Amino acid sequence: MEKFAVLGCGVVGSGVVELFEKNKALIEKRSGKELEMGYILDLRDFPDRPYANLLVKKIDPILADPDVTVVAECMGGVEPAFTFVKQCLEAGKSVATSNKELVAAKGDILLKTAKEYNVNFFFEASVGGAIPIIRPLHKCLAANDFSAIAGILNGTTNFILNKMIKENMDFSAALALAQEKGYAEKDPTADVDGHDACRKICILSSLAFGKHVYPESVHTKGIREVALKDVELCGKLGYSIKLIARVQRLENGKILPTVMPMAVEEDNLLSQVNGVYNAVMVRGDGISKAMFYGRGAGKFPTASAVLGDMIEEVQLDHTIPSQTWENVNSTDFIEDFSAFSAKRYIRTSAADAAVLREVFGDLTLEQTTDTGEAVLVTETSMNAAQVERAGEALAQKGIKLLAEYPVLVS
Amino acid sequence: MEKFAVLGCGVVGSGVVELFEKNKALIEKRSGKELEMGYILDLRDFPDRPYANLLVKKIDPILADPDVTVVAECMGGVEPAFTFVKQCLEAGKSVATSNKELVAAKGDILLKTAKEYNVNFFFEASVGGAIPIIRPLHKCLAANDFSAIAGILNGTTNFILNKMIKENMDFSAALALAQEKGYAEKDPTADVDGHDACRKICILSSLAFGKHVYPESVHTKGIREVALKDVELCGKLGYSIKLIARVQRLENGKILPTVMPMAVEEDNLLSQVNGVYNAVMVRGDGISKAMFYGRGAGKFPTASAVLGDMIEEVQLDHTIPSQTWENVNSTDFIEDFSAFSAKRYIRTSAADAAVLREVFGDLTLEQTTDTGEAVLVTETSMNAAQVERAGEALAQKGIKLLAEYPVLVS
Repeated sequence: MEKFAVLGCGVVGSGVVELFEKNKALIEKRSGKELEMGYILDLRDFPDRPYANLLVKKIDPILADPDVTVVAECMGGVEPAFTFVKQCLEAGKSVATSNKELVAAKGDILLKTAKEYNVNFFFEASVGGAIPIIRPLHKCLAANDFSAIAGILNGTTNFILNKMIKENMDFSAALALAQEKGYAEKDPTADVDGHDACRKICILSSLAFGKHVYPESVHTKGIREVALKDVELCGKLGYSIKLIARVQRLENGKILPTVMPMAVEEDNLLSQVNGVYNAVMVRGDGISKAMFYGRGAGKFPTASAVLGDMIEEVQLDHTIPSQTWENVNSTDFIEDFSAFSAKRYIRTSAADAAVLREVFGDLTLEQTTDTGEAVLVTETSMNAAQVERAGEALAQKGIKLLAEYPVLVS
Repeated sequence: MEKFAVLGCGVVGSGVVELFEKNKALIEKRSGKELEMGYILDLRDFPDRPYANLLVKKIDPILADPDVTVVAECMGGVEPAFTFVKQCLEAGKSVATSNKELVAAKGDILLKTAKEYNVNFFFEASVGGAIPIIRPLHKCLAANDFSAIAGILNGTTNFILNKMIKENMDFSAALALAQEKGYAEKDPTADVDGHDACRKICILSSLAFGKHVYPESVHTKGIREVALKDVELCGKLGYSIKLIARVQRLENGKILPTVMPMAVEEDNLLSQVNGVYNAVMVRGDGISKAMFYGRGAGKFPTASAVLGDMIEEVQLDHTIPSQTWENVNSTDFIEDFSAFSAKRYIRTSAADAAVLREVFGDLTLEQTTDTGEAVLVTETSMNAAQVERAGEALAQKGIKLLAEYPVLVS
């Protein structure tokens, strides 16, 4: 018999307890062992819950109980989660976490601690909620030299953009609806400004390329400034504006992680990912490309991923130190955003074709709106400096560059 | 140092050797050990290949070499693959196979043998080529009670249907093109008649529901009879005809596996899976739904999956007996196809709305073609007997039921 403990009895933590109790027989069969939920740590009281008798307010009884072999951390935030997780690992207990903030900030340290104490630190639930992506990347696709990962990793912003695309809501109205439905927090900063997606692409980049990528190294732009007009016009040109978290490996061997709204072609499956769903497209030399799709958040989807880690820990019989990546104390392997180059969707204040072609070169598509504005997609890739220079060249002709989005290559 | 051996030096086997040599440094880093390709078994000679010195014509030296810890089986077919794999397992070597025919026919026996000899029998490459689906189903999603799996599991038929949908080719022309491109065999029976997809849904069903499902228990229908006319008309109603391999768990607890062309709604991501790509949608009580997408076949995609298994075996340090399902020597847990019920796309020889509504009840959509025919999608689910009775009722009114496809619920 093995005992589980859960840290944090919020949405995800209570989901772990409830899904475990619901599917206990199945989970025990698949684990090959008898299992028991032993403790739930939370400062709050939940006297009416059926599992109220399991609640504890301190980490100590969990650390002290030798029968507890696997701990789920579902508290969120860096502290006290980091301290508790480290204590658990040092006490010889493996940990499965859903906490992307913790993994993005302290993953290297916790992976090292886990290895030192011969236990596992798992974090499948930290990226993409229910979507299996950590284990596939680390195991199933381990024979691949990865070249790029691109994903819709934040359900809240995807819900908002989707409402803008499909129902012509503007950003504020769509955000208010997301808050009403409980998809967005009262303070939506972490989601709409891209910080949440940034943490997740840090984790995927670290795993794919073997060195810890910190959030500070990632060029991160959210969706606050996405205008309904561009969503509509982009759509007419055959593109959807999506918040894309992405990392690519450049020819110089460095990697370039970004989070920003991008124009995604209609025949790219990522453009078809709607509502609160997430998806991750992975490119490698063996597989060409593969995509993973599912619910990126929510009580039971996230609990499913946490429990999947806990079950594997039991199946593994606690013998396998988990994956690791290096803390290189350097960002030399990360390319500066100035090197980022892509075709661009552009909106300008006037539709003078001759001038636009002079400034942007060949254009695949062009269209004049009823206000006299032009929208186009360039045929050549441009970096930020080139876009800026193009804006200056246009200004000299009295034309304003009103909006621009990089195009995601499928 | 650990030694690998590969059985079969065809497309997949040579892919395993070449991808391993290409990414050896990366694979060794991720495995945590030095690795060596030791043997390649094939009856043929390949004197010009760079690895010609590794070729052997008998299994004996592989069985006799204690340094060989992991064997990749890429021969295809049940024999002699079954005999060789069993001998390897009994000799204490773990096996990774890409051979779906072998797993569908003998998976239960080989899993039992692997457990007996404390080695692993892995088969990630047997379903969906490059797509990680076996390990995600077995590990990441192990906390879920599964209710259904539906997939496009055969790239050849998806390529053919796609050509019919997008370029108005008829079946014969599209098949000829697939053969020309090397996607279809000279004898295309295994693909176009659904046998290949059937083997794969057997494997996924066995894994998800824990009991071996043999191909003989699966209602299997291919795409030979799919008329271009129905592909077009179905498209106008907002559906794509796809060859769907599916298993669902019914309310009585039994499972119902099927392979047949189905009408897939446009807002279901499976309808957007084009060309030779495969995709698998999984439904479970924790995740709601998740989808896995990628190249379903081909040299390096399949090799990537085989090597992923081999790498995990090394990471695991050979200590973990792999997943298993029961051989129950019974088909009691499998429901008869007569119980299968779904909404239907229907084409009839005449468009008498009153008669059609009398026979089929409420219809969501209806359209008259230029030949006077009608196409419709029923609002109620019908089983095969009900469709047959509807056909008889129509015949009494002088109307022919010309075609029908079950609708896949997203």
